[in-house]
Amino acid sequence: MGCPAEDARLATEVLLEADLRGVDSHGVARLSGYVRLWEAGRINVTPQMRLVHETPSTATVDGDSGLGLVIAPRAMAIAMEKARQVGTGWVSVKNSNHFGIAGYHAMQALAADMIGMAMTNASPLVAPTHAVDRMLGTNPIAVAVPAKEQPPFVADFATAAAANGKLEILQRKEKKAPAGWLQTAEGLRSVNANELKAGGALLPLGSDKTHGSHKGYALASIVDIFSAVLSGANYGPWVPPFVSFLPLSENPVGEGIGHFLGAMRIDAFRPADEFKQHMDNWITTFRQANVKKGEKKVLIPGDPEREMTEERLQQGIPLLPPVVRDLQELGQKFGLSL
Amino acid sequence: MGCPAEDARLATEVLLEADLRGVDSHGVARLSGYVRLWEAGRINVTPQMRLVHETPSTATVDGDSGLGLVIAPRAMAIAMEKARQVGTGWVSVKNSNHFGIAGYHAMQALAADMIGMAMTNASPLVAPTHAVDRMLGTNPIAVAVPAKEQPPFVADFATAAAANGKLEILQRKEKKAPAGWLQTAEGLRSVNANELKAGGALLPLGSDKTHGSHKGYALASIVDIFSAVLSGANYGPWVPPFVSFLPLSENPVGEGIGHFLGAMRIDAFRPADEFKQHMDNWITTFRQANVKKGEKKVLIPGDPEREMTEERLQQGIPLLPPVVRDLQELGQKFGLSL
Repeated sequence: MGCPAEDARLATEVLLEADLRGVDSHGVARLSGYVRLWEAGRINVTPQMRLVHETPSTATVDGDSGLGLVIAPRAMAIAMEKARQVGTGWVSVKNSNHFGIAGYHAMQALAADMIGMAMTNASPLVAPTHAVDRMLGTNPIAVAVPAKEQPPFVADFATAAAANGKLEILQRKEKKAPAGWLQTAEGLRSVNANELKAGGALLPLGSDKTHGSHKGYALASIVDIFSAVLSGANYGPWVPPFVSFLPLSENPVGEGIGHFLGAMRIDAFRPADEFKQHMDNWITTFRQANVKKGEKKVLIPGDPEREMTEERLQQGIPLLPPVVRDLQELGQKFGLSL
Repeated sequence: MGCPAEDARLATEVLLEADLRGVDSHGVARLSGYVRLWEAGRINVTPQMRLVHETPSTATVDGDSGLGLVIAPRAMAIAMEKARQVGTGWVSVKNSNHFGIAGYHAMQALAADMIGMAMTNASPLVAPTHAVDRMLGTNPIAVAVPAKEQPPFVADFATAAAANGKLEILQRKEKKAPAGWLQTAEGLRSVNANELKAGGALLPLGSDKTHGSHKGYALASIVDIFSAVLSGANYGPWVPPFVSFLPLSENPVGEGIGHFLGAMRIDAFRPADEFKQHMDNWITTFRQANVKKGEKKVLIPGDPEREMTEERLQQGIPLLPPVVRDLQELGQKFGLSL
């Protein structure tokens, strides 16, 4: 595509990390989608990322339509440098594109004994409580916290009841979706995994008002505001779609999509070693909690992805036939043998 | 109780703000609970709040066992002063007590054109996904964002499927709880609003794994870690109970309960006026979204509480007979006429 080698390596690392962690929807399966965005002229492969505003603990970054896979790690590096200087760093990014898994970016902070945070807005698929219109993306939040002997705490989740990736799995298997994930275009509950294609919407975390969907709606809104209203990106229904065949908004309210990245130095609050010992205690205490009949253990956020990574580093990453075909086609297009 | 007049005024303001906003569970109905904690020697009415660690953008505060209603606003003032200096300010608090509604503290930032954040841990009532043990509090998160002509965006929510206050309302009315709020001591679903008294637990936001309870569990955990592991307060199952008749842990892992307060200056990212104009657009766009049949409108986080405040400022705050009796008894105890 013409990316500088260093950018290509970084983007590859972010995609492969998704596959290793078992987030197949955000790994190499998406490569063809990024290529199509580039073909549609929506991704600049040689972006000049610019710092458009800053204070000692904050920055606003213009991603120059670059790959989010490349822009987000660089914005995170700015957040971490600010944290080194003044304790914490917070970077809001505009004019970017899909950044892969949020967890990758948050985890960059771990080795520096920092808490890392990453969020991004995304094209509208989620209806607020009471609404029929899709107004918000599945707007994920990731928070990574270092421990000492224990593996880190890594939360990384969509603020919808279920991420779109889970729906795609059900579509491929031609299965129904659980009640509480989706509604029809009229706002009625739906178990049709293809409901989005018929104009339906995903539901916020909490599924309905009784179970706190207004909280999931608030969380997705906070991600949208921090990522895009702070930075000057598109927000809410104006966020550009990941798929290249959908048109861009004719009257955008900002530039590209937005991210928000944060880093807090542990020793800006408390000696890092002391903190990490307590995190070990926190983690082992929760892991040892008594479980319900039929369940094996209580998981710590990040456990399933870490276990999957160990397995896949041993056994390889299984790819579905359509993904293999996609990669073969890409290889042909760019004159690479696979 | 012996609080300095200024502290008493501040604590009163926080409690009354809860009543005005319709969060009756956190208003004057709780006054007798704070008094009982003081009688049990667990609240220091003349605390010497200390800043035990700081960087330009962070601070760790020791609340000296003071009322959270007084410690949290002062910690928020430190966060805001740091934001004035370096763009953002983040304060983790240990050795505190219940701080009332999180929203009050987050909203302090609004008049200064800052985004405010407040969270606190609380005594364990919530079982992580797969667990039967209560390991986390209902650990609320509040985020307040200023707008221009529109009222501010104010999210303030427990990270459990339902806050304990909602359960108390059902208990008083002798009604059943919706499925998805509670489980029995064995981890089975329960609709008994009194299930907590029988050793049951509240469920995290999301209610069950299929609907994302691991996300609610992660959110409550993040609140716990930011509030207590960063500051040196008690975390997880060690968080001291609000009710004075329950014993304190014999082997605490920290001091008191913990809070986390944050302030981000809008103009650390973007000119404040520009941001607030876009927030107006965000708010009006969401408010105008099409609604489901049977629903009146799409609400913006903070709308219900603001409407309630307008109503109660006109018509007064209705108090239930047990709350009135409680206040009368307190009046007698302290020689005040009511």
